[in-house]
Amino acid sequence: MHAEGYSASGIQSIVEAADIPKGSFYNHFASKEAFGAEVTDAYFDRGEGQLRVFLCDPEVAPLQRLEAYFDDRIKALRAAKYTRGCLLGNLAAEVADHSTLIRGRLVKHFGGWSSFFEDCIAEAKKQGAIRNRLPAALLGRFVLNSWEGALLRMRAEKSDSPLMEFKKVIFGALLV
Amino acid sequence: MHAEGYSASGIQSIVEAADIPKGSFYNHFASKEAFGAEVTDAYFDRGEGQLRVFLCDPEVAPLQRLEAYFDDRIKALRAAKYTRGCLLGNLAAEVADHSTLIRGRLVKHFGGWSSFFEDCIAEAKKQGAIRNRLPAALLGRFVLNSWEGALLRMRAEKSDSPLMEFKKVIFGALLV
Repeated sequence: MHAEGYSASGIQSIVEAADIPKGSFYNHFASKEAFGAEVTDAYFDRGEGQLRVFLCDPEVAPLQRLEAYFDDRIKALRAAKYTRGCLLGNLAAEVADHSTLIRGRLVKHFGGWSSFFEDCIAEAKKQGAIRNRLPAALLGRFVLNSWEGALLRMRAEKSDSPLMEFKKVIFGALLV
Repeated sequence: MHAEGYSASGIQSIVEAADIPKGSFYNHFASKEAFGAEVTDAYFDRGEGQLRVFLCDPEVAPLQRLEAYFDDRIKALRAAKYTRGCLLGNLAAEVADHSTLIRGRLVKHFGGWSSFFEDCIAEAKKQGAIRNRLPAALLGRFVLNSWEGALLRMRAEKSDSPLMEFKKVIFGALLV
């Protein structure tokens, strides 16, 4: 679903990839939409692990943590040859208008993700490392949304330059 | 294709919407992919018209032009109840990994779109209205990519708040 897209992933190809009979799919999931919602949760669970590793280490200065997080993501995207991007962003583009269920999960997980950024930014502000007066919550959401946009441009260009430019602006002109 | 997504728009539903026989489709387009590429071009042509109207008026200060452009887009998105977003962004998320043809069009049109922003930003810099020292070209690309990301979050939240926050950061903290 991450690699092929939501509509392009038929239940038949999902059960084939999982090597299970089609009936088993419906034992576990009421519909493809319900499956998509669980996939969204599972994706964010994994992402949250990375967020905790990088953003919650009190030994490292908050802005350095945030930068290390993006460096790690950029490394992974480079290894994936700039394909797939972020499943949450992909579903926002492809499915949010058509599924209230999945849209609800996106709101929740985008919110959770942003609040990790917000906490780091609030801490950096408290320490005087950021003088930008916009609220940490707003900046946290903006950083996430801009990252999602940089990923779209990366998918088109198949290069890390939108990601590197994102870092230049965020760490060189915004969180300063 | 804009409302339903690329994969979800079968050729059958396209010819039905256009009220033409299926054979006519293949008289004009070699494949759905070729059709998608033409749709991408047509979409940007229309968007370019709006860009020219708002961004190229020498009577208005360049930053005001840029802000008026986004205000107009936000008005249109509000009227569309925060659905559909940007076709280029949607195709970047759904199709860029799978079609070299459409990906090429996205690179071209994202580039064209960014350069309208770049020209406005360069003019504002020349007039001393922006002190941010990052290059106008980089800022133009960043503004477009961030806008695309704000649209994804808008699709999930079905509210204009990601768009208003985008404006706050871009015009209140970045292009200053």
